[in-house]
Amino acid sequence: MPELRQDPASKRWVIIARERSKRPHAFVRLDENGPVAPAYSSECPFCGGNEELTPPETFAVRDGTAADTPGWRVRAVPNKFAALLPVGSTERRTENEFFRWMDGVGKHEVIVESPVHNLHMALMDDSQVQSVVAAYRERYLALREDTRFKLILIFKNHGVSAGTSLEHPHSQLVATPVVPNDIRTMFQRAFDFYDDTGSCVYCQMLAEELRLGKRLILETDGFVVFHPFASRMPFETWIVPRKHGASFGLLTVAEASELAVVLKQALRRIHFGLKNPDFNMIIQTAPVKDEFEEYFHWHIQILPRLTTAAGFEMGTGIYINVALPEETAQFMRAVDVHEAEPPRGSPAVLR
Amino acid sequence: MPELRQDPASKRWVIIARERSKRPHAFVRLDENGPVAPAYSSECPFCGGNEELTPPETFAVRDGTAADTPGWRVRAVPNKFAALLPVGSTERRTENEFFRWMDGVGKHEVIVESPVHNLHMALMDDSQVQSVVAAYRERYLALREDTRFKLILIFKNHGVSAGTSLEHPHSQLVATPVVPNDIRTMFQRAFDFYDDTGSCVYCQMLAEELRLGKRLILETDGFVVFHPFASRMPFETWIVPRKHGASFGLLTVAEASELAVVLKQALRRIHFGLKNPDFNMIIQTAPVKDEFEEYFHWHIQILPRLTTAAGFEMGTGIYINVALPEETAQFMRAVDVHEAEPPRGSPAVLR
Repeated sequence: MPELRQDPASKRWVIIARERSKRPHAFVRLDENGPVAPAYSSECPFCGGNEELTPPETFAVRDGTAADTPGWRVRAVPNKFAALLPVGSTERRTENEFFRWMDGVGKHEVIVESPVHNLHMALMDDSQVQSVVAAYRERYLALREDTRFKLILIFKNHGVSAGTSLEHPHSQLVATPVVPNDIRTMFQRAFDFYDDTGSCVYCQMLAEELRLGKRLILETDGFVVFHPFASRMPFETWIVPRKHGASFGLLTVAEASELAVVLKQALRRIHFGLKNPDFNMIIQTAPVKDEFEEYFHWHIQILPRLTTAAGFEMGTGIYINVALPEETAQFMRAVDVHEAEPPRGSPAVLR
Repeated sequence: MPELRQDPASKRWVIIARERSKRPHAFVRLDENGPVAPAYSSECPFCGGNEELTPPETFAVRDGTAADTPGWRVRAVPNKFAALLPVGSTERRTENEFFRWMDGVGKHEVIVESPVHNLHMALMDDSQVQSVVAAYRERYLALREDTRFKLILIFKNHGVSAGTSLEHPHSQLVATPVVPNDIRTMFQRAFDFYDDTGSCVYCQMLAEELRLGKRLILETDGFVVFHPFASRMPFETWIVPRKHGASFGLLTVAEASELAVVLKQALRRIHFGLKNPDFNMIIQTAPVKDEFEEYFHWHIQILPRLTTAAGFEMGTGIYINVALPEETAQFMRAVDVHEAEPPRGSPAVLR
């Protein structure tokens, strides 16, 4: 019998299609032994040494070298084909007094995760991932000062079916001049729960998942990784901080450092367990004005692209998930994360 | 300068990314001359002659022949790998009094659009498409009688990147035991507009599009086809009935007949203009209990899968559209729909 499950936070229903469901190992990529990317590509704007191919950097982790020269570990640059630009008016206008529009005011940056063309976050050493998350935090904090920006979304598209056009590992940051509807809806649901119970729905979800244990992947002092009860897709993975906070921007430097290690471990299990699948990663965080709300709780969602959202999902928002989160979590807990292999030095070989 | 546009009905924002935008012809498929599907496949459960490979039919357009035998034009059958099943309880239950779930009670049917393996709706003669839309209507009306079903969604996935697993042209129907959140949200927005203005927001949208003309594709006495102001993706196409009605189920037989011809013409432009792209088609209609509401207006959305929704879209619900609806509509109006070529007789050649 198929099952409908409701995400307690967003109230979004999903269908767990037991009749169509597959065992976790059915999702392991078969085409993984394709061409191996080189460690450097002369045409890649993100490779170390090609700094002149991007707009001037907005931030970099580097050891004393000059901006826009080699010698960096992580580098943030404006997206050359930006979806939003930090110019124009935030005034709402209309066409025929009916169709509402406004200038695409905002910011769209790329966070290049390392100078190496083929080094995935799952395979970096801890300190490199820590530099990546430090860059997320720095750019978030810098952009939140601009009062035109209502929401700052940090995300990553890994692989062609996850929508990336550039092979070199990178994350993105988009600052929007409106609060997106989906964020507003998610907030409203969390507020309703708080209004009823006096608690944060994510805090309670975390407590329940820890008590049940069956959907947990790993946990540290500060963070818990699990496959949510109402997972939209196979191997959907959430990283939730134990400490309540509505915004990623409230993260301390020490917490960011711990998060980086947890994120790497979560990605490592996905990388080795499913053989480097395409995925999206999203940091779900509060609109800037709501950073101190008691009812929302920032977290990371990792969404492997192993199935395709089709007409039903697009028409209803209800996802049909062909895997059981309890089974995928069990599979993930057992993955050999190859910790013995030192990921330093020869990234091309490791891939 | 990029532009943010808001859909007047759903209030959903989209980004029209002028900096990344492409001319309409850039979306024309280049790989169209791939292998041509045969007119019959012995393994295909939907081909005429293979009726025993499906569960017993729930409906068919046939000329006096017996159920589950050859001689049909359109055939509806239960989905063998149904996402929802018409058994079980509609009671909400919980895991640990926190995680809400229920049996996957519902119906999931396939509407096989013709007995021919390679005949797309765009290439059928009018009477065949009329049989398809008649089947949509019949199955909608039959399933709306079951009080367990709250929403009946009819949709179609065309092509692998639109999520289809079977080549033989077919549509699907899913009846759900809950009103999906996205439908509820869409309704609430339409209600808010009605509450403010006393009019249906879709009726007004139609009037504005007709007045402006620049996003229109075609129109008949009963229906208007256009690329909406806040298109989420390139060549997003809406078919909106001029007559106000909240539900597809209110369509008369004569209106269904006219709709079929309009739908075919819309699909024909997409087929010839973009060279048979993958797409999803969705009939957006009211929940069964709201069929007579004055503020909602059923319509068809066709969503070509020419770009990939990625982390930003998944995290915010804001789509980044790299084409201008005004330009794509102009392109579509000029498409040669090859009306001189009679689509009867030799479908394999026509593909």
